[in-house]
Amino acid sequence: MFITVEGGEGVGKSTNIDYLQDYLRSRGVDLLLTREPGGTGLAEQIRELLVARREEGVDPLAELLLVFAARAQHLAKVIEPALAAGQWVLCDRFTDATYAYQAGGRGLSADLVRRLEVLVQGELRPDFTLLFDAPVEVGMERARERGSLDRFEEEEIAFFERVRQTYLRLARESSGRFRVIDAAQPLEAVREQLHSVCGELFDCWGVRH
Amino acid sequence: MFITVEGGEGVGKSTNIDYLQDYLRSRGVDLLLTREPGGTGLAEQIRELLVARREEGVDPLAELLLVFAARAQHLAKVIEPALAAGQWVLCDRFTDATYAYQAGGRGLSADLVRRLEVLVQGELRPDFTLLFDAPVEVGMERARERGSLDRFEEEEIAFFERVRQTYLRLARESSGRFRVIDAAQPLEAVREQLHSVCGELFDCWGVRH
Ligand SMILES: Nc1ncnc2c1ncn2[C@@H]1O[C@H](COP(=O)(O)OP(=O)(O)O)[C@@H](O)[C@H]1O
Ligand SMILES: Nc1ncnc2c1ncn2[C@@H]1O[C@H](COP(=O)(O)OP(=O)(O)O)[C@@H](O)[C@H]1O
Ligand SMILES: [Mg+2]
Ligand SMILES: [Mg+2]
Repeated sequence: MFITVEGGEGVGKSTNIDYLQDYLRSRGVDLLLTREPGGTGLAEQIRELLVARREEGVDPLAELLLVFAARAQHLAKVIEPALAAGQWVLCDRFTDATYAYQAGGRGLSADLVRRLEVLVQGELRPDFTLLFDAPVEVGMERARERGSLDRFEEEEIAFFERVRQTYLRLARESSGRFRVIDAAQPLEAVREQLHSVCGELFDCWGVRH
Repeated sequence: MFITVEGGEGVGKSTNIDYLQDYLRSRGVDLLLTREPGGTGLAEQIRELLVARREEGVDPLAELLLVFAARAQHLAKVIEPALAAGQWVLCDRFTDATYAYQAGGRGLSADLVRRLEVLVQGELRPDFTLLFDAPVEVGMERARERGSLDRFEEEEIAFFERVRQTYLRLARESSGRFRVIDAAQPLEAVREQLHSVCGELFDCWGVRH
């Protein structure tokens, strides 16, 4: 099973993915936790190039190709071997983020993203995607409290609105794969939503819980 | 005019491109000298990721996407603005190197390279390409004397044979664009070949020399 966690800045992906991993492991799932961009030494170095604030403007197509370069490495060295060995993979962001940020946010065509998706992933898609959704200001406020902003986090509100709306549209278009979590609620209420989604998942995939 | 210089390791590209730039400038050409992978701050950082020796094997597709990410940035920030401003651009390596190394050397399909070439460059191609050709051992010997080997230079002889044969095939297939320089000869003889090629170029492009 390949599960991805998606959403804008500061919505609580990293906070809740830790909780989710403990929950899955406690139910006996052999789980690999990873993230994008990143997940291997080289891919994490590519992530650093992507998020670094810099004088030089980054061409959107260069950014898109860097994201998929990191993904190709991550898939070849980590995700595909883990899935082939029967592990579950839980990934903090994946290709939906590319549609949301590079197409929705930056304005590249979704068709361009789709061509690279096919080129790099073939037919591999997540089995299940948790979308943490919250109003942009809520996430931005939480992210700001976390410390200095990176090259994405320093974008304007309109950028993150496009990111959010793209995510919500993807969730509507692939409603079988997505579950939307209301991440504006207090952590306790978010956890209850996670529990109920996990219960549904386990029923559906035949995991005892 | 967009001129590229190609060839394997140690054949004398960098040595002769300096000479060529002086020669062109002395004839009044407004010239920008650059190189790939690289040519901008970000693209040079991508180059560092590409050439670094590392324990982690680099997936060939990830390598290919990194090369084109650097190229997209280089084109958008340096090459296209220079050409638009009427400058000539002289570039140490370009997409022929991607066919030679990532397709010929690594064994990726040339069709994959072609799809990314179109995606990143649209219709932009070099006007003219100088291929420095020498037997693999000659170039390797010269490169070895230059110091420690990078991730490409440490490849086996068979890899560089495939690179060389791919370059020669490209030169045959696009004989209008390519001129092959016999780079195994002493520097003096290489320079004479450069002079004669430049004379031909200038006649053909109406530059007084
Ligand atoms: N539901 C929530 N209510 C309040 N604060 C939260 C909630 N979820 C996460 N946070 C806090 O918001 C900040 C950003 O969370 P994080 O998990 O890093 O977000 P993301 O990984 O989506 O960018 C952290 O300080 C985290 O403790
Ligand atoms: N024709 C030549 N004969 C002998 N040595 C050469 C010749 N061309 C270049 N060299 C030497 O070979 C080494 C590699 O040359 P360089 O220009 O760095 O190659 P490249 O850029 O193609 O890798 C340098 O030390 C250079 O001085
Ligand atoms: Mg996070
Ligand atoms: Mg050189």
